Amino acid sequence: MATGTQRPSVPAAALLILPLLRAALGQQFVVTAQTPSDCGGGSYFDASSLSCVTCGANQVPSKSGLACECQTGHRLLFNSGGGVTCQPCPASSPAVTRDGYGCIRCPGPAGEDGRCQCPAGHVLVERDDSGNVLEDAACQPCNADEPALSAPDVSGSRCVRCQDSFINSSLSCVCGGSSIQAGGLCFPPNSLPTSVSASVTFAQLSLPVQSVWFSNFLYSSAAACLVFSNRSACQALGNMCVMNMHSSSAVTNDACGFYNILYRITATLGFTQGISYWRANLPWLYYGEQPGLASQVLRTEPLPVGYSFKGAQKNTRIELQAAVYNAAGGFLRWENVTGGTLQLCQDTGGRKQAAFTFGTSYKQSCVLSVSDLLTLFPEPRFYDVFLALGTSSADRRLLALPVLNLNMQFNGQFINQGSSVNNWYLTRRLLLVDTLSGRDKSLNIPPKVIRVATAIKIGFQLMPNTQRGEVYPPLITMSYSDVPITNPLTQTVPVSFSVEYEMDQSEARVKTDIALGVLGGVAVLYSLLKTASWKRRISSPIIDLETVLKFLLFYAGDLANVFFAITVGTGVYWLIFYKTLQAQQFVSVLLPLPQQEERFVTYVGCAFALKAVQFLHKLLQQVCVDIFFIDWERPRDKALRADVGGEAKSGAPPVSIWRTYFVANEWNEIQTLRKINPTFQIVAVLFLLEVVGFSNLGLRDPWSTLQRPPEAYTPPHSLVLRYGLASILWLCIGLLQVVFFTVFYERFVEDKIRQFVDLCSISNISVLLLSHRCFGYYIHGRSVHGHADTNMEEMNSNLKREADNLCGQRGLLPNSDTQTFQISITNRLRVQYDRILEPLTRRHGPSRLVDASANPFEQSTKAYHTMNRFLGSVIDHAHREMDYLVRDKLLFERLVGMEFVEPLDKSIFYNDESHSFSDVLFYGNEATLLIFDTLFFCVVDLGSQSFVLAAVLTYLQQLVFRLIRDAVGQRNLAAKTLVDKRFLI
Amino acid sequence: MATGTQRPSVPAAALLILPLLRAALGQQFVVTAQTPSDCGGGSYFDASSLSCVTCGANQVPSKSGLACECQTGHRLLFNSGGGVTCQPCPASSPAVTRDGYGCIRCPGPAGEDGRCQCPAGHVLVERDDSGNVLEDAACQPCNADEPALSAPDVSGSRCVRCQDSFINSSLSCVCGGSSIQAGGLCFPPNSLPTSVSASVTFAQLSLPVQSVWFSNFLYSSAAACLVFSNRSACQALGNMCVMNMHSSSAVTNDACGFYNILYRITATLGFTQGISYWRANLPWLYYGEQPGLASQVLRTEPLPVGYSFKGAQKNTRIELQAAVYNAAGGFLRWENVTGGTLQLCQDTGGRKQAAFTFGTSYKQSCVLSVSDLLTLFPEPRFYDVFLALGTSSADRRLLALPVLNLNMQFNGQFINQGSSVNNWYLTRRLLLVDTLSGRDKSLNIPPKVIRVATAIKIGFQLMPNTQRGEVYPPLITMSYSDVPITNPLTQTVPVSFSVEYEMDQSEARVKTDIALGVLGGVAVLYSLLKTASWKRRISSPIIDLETVLKFLLFYAGDLANVFFAITVGTGVYWLIFYKTLQAQQFVSVLLPLPQQEERFVTYVGCAFALKAVQFLHKLLQQVCVDIFFIDWERPRDKALRADVGGEAKSGAPPVSIWRTYFVANEWNEIQTLRKINPTFQIVAVLFLLEVVGFSNLGLRDPWSTLQRPPEAYTPPHSLVLRYGLASILWLCIGLLQVVFFTVFYERFVEDKIRQFVDLCSISNISVLLLSHRCFGYYIHGRSVHGHADTNMEEMNSNLKREADNLCGQRGLLPNSDTQTFQISITNRLRVQYDRILEPLTRRHGPSRLVDASANPFEQSTKAYHTMNRFLGSVIDHAHREMDYLVRDKLLFERLVGMEFVEPLDKSIFYNDESHSFSDVLFYGNEATLLIFDTLFFCVVDLGSQSFVLAAVLTYLQQLVFRLIRDAVGQRNLAAKTLVDKRFLI
Repeated sequence: MATGTQRPSVPAAALLILPLLRAALGQQFVVTAQTPSDCGGGSYFDASSLSCVTCGANQVPSKSGLACECQTGHRLLFNSGGGVTCQPCPASSPAVTRDGYGCIRCPGPAGEDGRCQCPAGHVLVERDDSGNVLEDAACQPCNADEPALSAPDVSGSRCVRCQDSFINSSLSCVCGGSSIQAGGLCFPPNSLPTSVSASVTFAQLSLPVQSVWFSNFLYSSAAACLVFSNRSACQALGNMCVMNMHSSSAVTNDACGFYNILYRITATLGFTQGISYWRANLPWLYYGEQPGLASQVLRTEPLPVGYSFKGAQKNTRIELQAAVYNAAGGFLRWENVTGGTLQLCQDTGGRKQAAFTFGTSYKQSCVLSVSDLLTLFPEPRFYDVFLALGTSSADRRLLALPVLNLNMQFNGQFINQGSSVNNWYLTRRLLLVDTLSGRDKSLNIPPKVIRVATAIKIGFQLMPNTQRGEVYPPLITMSYSDVPITNPLTQTVPVSFSVEYEMDQSEARVKTDIALGVLGGVAVLYSLLKTASWKRRISSPIIDLETVLKFLLFYAGDLANVFFAITVGTGVYWLIFYKTLQAQQFVSVLLPLPQQEERFVTYVGCAFALKAVQFLHKLLQQVCVDIFFIDWERPRDKALRADVGGEAKSGAPPVSIWRTYFVANEWNEIQTLRKINPTFQIVAVLFLLEVVGFSNLGLRDPWSTLQRPPEAYTPPHSLVLRYGLASILWLCIGLLQVVFFTVFYERFVEDKIRQFVDLCSISNISVLLLSHRCFGYYIHGRSVHGHADTNMEEMNSNLKREADNLCGQRGLLPNSDTQTFQISITNRLRVQYDRILEPLTRRHGPSRLVDASANPFEQSTKAYHTMNRFLGSVIDHAHREMDYLVRDKLLFERLVGMEFVEPLDKSIFYNDESHSFSDVLFYGNEATLLIFDTLFFCVVDLGSQSFVLAAVLTYLQQLVFRLIRDAVGQRNLAAKTLVDKRFLI
Repeated sequence: MATGTQRPSVPAAALLILPLLRAALGQQFVVTAQTPSDCGGGSYFDASSLSCVTCGANQVPSKSGLACECQTGHRLLFNSGGGVTCQPCPASSPAVTRDGYGCIRCPGPAGEDGRCQCPAGHVLVERDDSGNVLEDAACQPCNADEPALSAPDVSGSRCVRCQDSFINSSLSCVCGGSSIQAGGLCFPPNSLPTSVSASVTFAQLSLPVQSVWFSNFLYSSAAACLVFSNRSACQALGNMCVMNMHSSSAVTNDACGFYNILYRITATLGFTQGISYWRANLPWLYYGEQPGLASQVLRTEPLPVGYSFKGAQKNTRIELQAAVYNAAGGFLRWENVTGGTLQLCQDTGGRKQAAFTFGTSYKQSCVLSVSDLLTLFPEPRFYDVFLALGTSSADRRLLALPVLNLNMQFNGQFINQGSSVNNWYLTRRLLLVDTLSGRDKSLNIPPKVIRVATAIKIGFQLMPNTQRGEVYPPLITMSYSDVPITNPLTQTVPVSFSVEYEMDQSEARVKTDIALGVLGGVAVLYSLLKTASWKRRISSPIIDLETVLKFLLFYAGDLANVFFAITVGTGVYWLIFYKTLQAQQFVSVLLPLPQQEERFVTYVGCAFALKAVQFLHKLLQQVCVDIFFIDWERPRDKALRADVGGEAKSGAPPVSIWRTYFVANEWNEIQTLRKINPTFQIVAVLFLLEVVGFSNLGLRDPWSTLQRPPEAYTPPHSLVLRYGLASILWLCIGLLQVVFFTVFYERFVEDKIRQFVDLCSISNISVLLLSHRCFGYYIHGRSVHGHADTNMEEMNSNLKREADNLCGQRGLLPNSDTQTFQISITNRLRVQYDRILEPLTRRHGPSRLVDASANPFEQSTKAYHTMNRFLGSVIDHAHREMDYLVRDKLLFERLVGMEFVEPLDKSIFYNDESHSFSDVLFYGNEATLLIFDTLFFCVVDLGSQSFVLAAVLTYLQQLVFRLIRDAVGQRNLAAKTLVDKRFLI
């Protein structure tokens, strides 16, 4: 067995030793990488040993580099598949036969490859018909005329019939006379311009390329289409127009110019499939001959199918079909447009397929390497895209989808890039990657420029007011980028594919505007009412700047509520209608697009800003409230002392201040008490959103499943849905908490507000709160036992007596239980109140000579005692000119929050069973706080798209404001009640 | 222009009307879908109109269905590309020439296609050498003998030289004599068995398939390899062995049997590239001729490259190269093994590429459709995989990677499925999807069974104790599944691809065990000490069951700390060494695999369970503590009354109980005070983990970046890293909080503990706390002003005097400031204490006749007064037999937490400036609480892999335990101090 390869000859003993040796050297199983291109002249790449091996004598490596072949002038003796054996040809027969096994004499000089050559129109004969090798090769002319009509075949070894177009034009195999030979065909004289414009304009680069494909085949395709009705030629012509971005102008000799000439000439042939734009034989490229039909195509008639997300009518599958052609015009196949067809980015099949589920907003983008594109798309593919209408396999209707090519130029203008539908010029055929038209020298060398569809968008528009899930024909928008090839390995192109669903939101917008207008008006009225009430409560009749400011502050709060109601309503509307209700029936609404959400976000921002103003205003009001604890306790042994008589008053045992301290301390503690547990609120919302998975309801698809597999496609979030979701969860949990605390906790476990009122009663201390100048609250705490400053024994017996109903009732009026009142006090009372406190407030003013020596401790103690006596006597009706009366508030007074009767002569105490004194605490303003927290949470989330961050920041916000309220409230309490701050712990 | 197609002929006027009509009918741009296969007999699919069109006269549709061709017996007149024209042949020349354009007479009967036919060894001649069509076609025999050696070519129209192997075997084109014709070749007699076993065993289905590929080509490949050294035949033989899963046995006539015969026969030819298992000409399939070399191959020598994550030496790229062959043995190319080569699942390029970054655990899995597999893999590809060692392009060394084929059978045993490395039989070549060997009737019909590589794993093992990032040669583990083809459209196969990194963890385990042993021993000693201390404090010398139980409880806490320290240490060790330190240098450690983490998780579980026991024990102790408030206040006018003399004691003004209420209320409030803000703790940890992105440090890759792009590959989490991360963050933030509160907040804002002590002083009330029977704490609160039960005036002046240093110091001893003490009391004192409380404790016992009438209120008040007097007199040294002395605690006593002196005769008060009475509050047990919270958080996270859920549950846990502690503590306080529960608000 003679092979031409050379192998290292190894002695048998080395077979055993060498591996051990190599292992010792630490080079086990390591080989040197060699590729076919590494093997230098004279050696080939041996695929069994994966290394370069030298070729044998008289041999050279073959073109692929994977084997050896005989040198020129050598014939092949034997080819085993493992190697060849060659032999030089004798001088008498210096050439080698085409099969390489024989030596032969040529009729003329041999070619460079050592084979014989023949002139054009001749064939080379080396064997006779029986296969015997001739001594001398012969060149035989082919008979080009009738009836032989023959020409050499591609290999030049036989005469075969020549191409039909030659025979058709010249009745021989020569294209003569006035016939025109182009693209391998022969055409009779015709009406087409013979000079073609083969330049393809890459407009983004301002670079026209003389495309070799166009110059080779543009004229021949047009002529073959026109003269012979050659179907693939017609398609090829159309494809060239597509590669030129459908751009048409007055020029008639470019691709689309030729197409338009043919479109007009072939009008008499009729149209295809009943569509007037689809000329027989020609591909359908344009909707009409002029721009302007777009709105008619896109908005006239809905699809005959209705989309539905669930139920018996469920139909969410968007089934696209494409007829695929190659550049030469050949029909390749019908293709189901699934994941890979139009999506250039790689991804898992399931995620890609999510693009074709109705209602799922889809966006996929990535950056592709140009070298990958060149490998994957050696030649362009052309797609005519249809939407399958039939749901069953028997019903096979297809709707042709229009394409908006943003790169199309019409008379030099990019008319499709404008927003006006009426200017658009819709087209049909599309291509993804064009690596063909940019080849300017040869079809075999890489292109100078490629064109890539970098943004593909399929847009669905819901029909207005549809109840049957009807949509208009979807529009495919294509945007191409021109990429000049400089270094494919490092060049990249960003590409994207998206599916969008849109509905006309103008009706919703109008409704929102109306609601905003109406509620805004109501808010004005309500704020005016509040301002009026406030004016009465501060007992000031003049409308001054402060009044206007106060009105604006009230209005901010009310307007914030209006914005909040509208935004929550909108969010919940979309949640319910898009995510839940719609699942049972035909699609009737689609989510607003991100750009349509901007208005909504603005509303949320307004709501938050205004609510913040209201919140800060309330906070400020609360920390400035006037408060005083009236101690009813009188020295116990007054009577005793009266008996003894005439003793020094200084010796009387003082009334202990500790009860006041206790009450003040408790009041200090309930300042930031709330009707809900705010931290639990955050934790619960976060739990529902992130752990239970409610946040998945915020995704832009119609599914309302909470848990999704991690490998599934995740659509982008909708801001409206996120807001709706977060706000409604927040409000619901807040409401549940309020209900829980009100109905269960405060009734069966602990009610801090009632405890405080009880404490007042037991400690024999009343609380006077003045939230406004002449309005406030009074908690009547006079002990029914007369004394509270006593020892444990008496306290316990007092409590027991009360439990056994052995003593009077706690109310202010005899035989009543009402301890809490709203009070409207007269101006006179207030003036007196202020006068008593004057020495204290003056302390903070500029120092005066008269007070320089006065001890602040003494002053405050004195003021305390005076105030205590004064207020006690007022409550006891001891001051005739400052008397008061007790009445119930009218229902309407309660509703509008305003007192109708002005306290001119007598102060008025309104019975108030509902403990509304908590209005000066966090407790009574739960709605404001809850809404503020909700908005804070939502605004952070809208900005950051992170519920966790929103929760963290909301917690910190609550913490900070609680600390501020506590600290400033404590200082206010100390200042107003004269209780030392050190006891407020 | 005459075409054979028929088109609907439409009058010109209808061109305008029809579209309008269609629009009105709502069917605009809708076409009927037709495919080439839909078109019935006599019609073809017209690619320009995408519909079926009837063929013209004398025509039938072509095979592809895209055009028409002439019927049998008709010649082609003209083919325009848009249609053909046909003409019947005259009866005199009934057959059609091969090119279709001429009519001709045959030498024999024409075939079914209307063309002439010739017998074997003959060629058909229709034209002469000049291309003139003959009247009569002729059948010409080819000369098979020397020197012509010719046979008909594939088309049967020319005589060409026949195949070399025929000439070689028989010196003619006939394979005669004892030569064997197989697979299109002719072999001389040789030593190979001629009967082949062509059955491929699909072991999982127990289904042997008579493979047509094997029966056609197995013998010929083996023979051509042996006889002619045909390279592709040798490769093809090897590939068949690979398709048979490398399974070898005593049978010699199956694929691997033939391979082994050739392996032995060709031993003399030497080996390739210096590797003794790689026989010249043959592909390298096995490591050795027998199993047993695996450990030598895998564990002897590390790779000559070191991996490093960062810095100048950075080397994380795993560059695999594969030589790719087709089934017929042809070498296709060298392929860089990137994303798509071995990974059957689709995914984005970037994510797939993440598999080849050293240190990144990678796992990808999906379910593939069988029909997709059949389309994507029409024929199998075979890969010889190498690891590129050189880092530069000049250094091109490759390491051959071993493959562990789990489906391989050796003598009928699946030897590679065992865990013993010594039994493994490593192989080389692999394939992904085999759709070839399962074809049992013809190569053109779909296979009966396919074989899919359903689990591919590349495993790296770090060399023990390496400092240079050295790893052993990686092992590719392949697991195949056999899928019988029943309905490809619905059948699916789950496939996965993973890359794992492993290091020997036994050393780490030994170190952990040692640490556990040592620290566990220390814990025993410490717990014994605690038990002894406890025995002294309860003043009980007997070792009973309770003592053992107590020891176990103490031991639980200490052991929990040991486990906690070890687990945190381990987690932080991995965090630091894998994620941070290692980034600067060569790889020296790799994370434990999930199965190696089980032990760690068990430790964490132990730590949590033991900590929970300790926590509950402390909680129980705290809510059972004995406490009493000693009121020093005496009736103010005692002196006065003494002067007056003889008055009824009942008339004396009682000492107000409100100061006691105030102090009790404050004590109640600080019960669950902590040194940190526990909710802020949770929020801060969650913020760092989820928003800042620390959770990304828990991923199984070497990168320490916090934010990762969402499209990047996300490796699985490592439990050890997650635990280390969560625990260290929790501890750090806790520590920071403790520092903040201790150093800043308590000094400058508010120190609740100090406030309480001050309050005691101001309110003239001392607190006696007995946490054990004879051990506890004493807060001395005797007012320096003698009286505290006074009015605001005196309170303020008292406070002012104290601020001005005008009165004595607050300490128990004269001229000392020490108000807080640890106390060891004598048994006698405790007995007396219990005796006073007896009437109260008895109340809860069974009722007795003697007490039936006693008023519980009176009893408790009496007990309160008695106790108050008794304790006051003890503190005042009024009881000689219950005296006490005050001393400092020794340093060593402080350290071990035990008193050395037993209070036999006198009670001992130890000065205690550090307010250690907070040990009976949450405040003094911050370490236990913090560790318990940490472990709770971590355990929830380890179970659920969700930090958010862990945060939510930790919050709830804190809330619940705080509520329990508050409620039960309040009840205890009310019971022990006799303060009514209603004042503890």
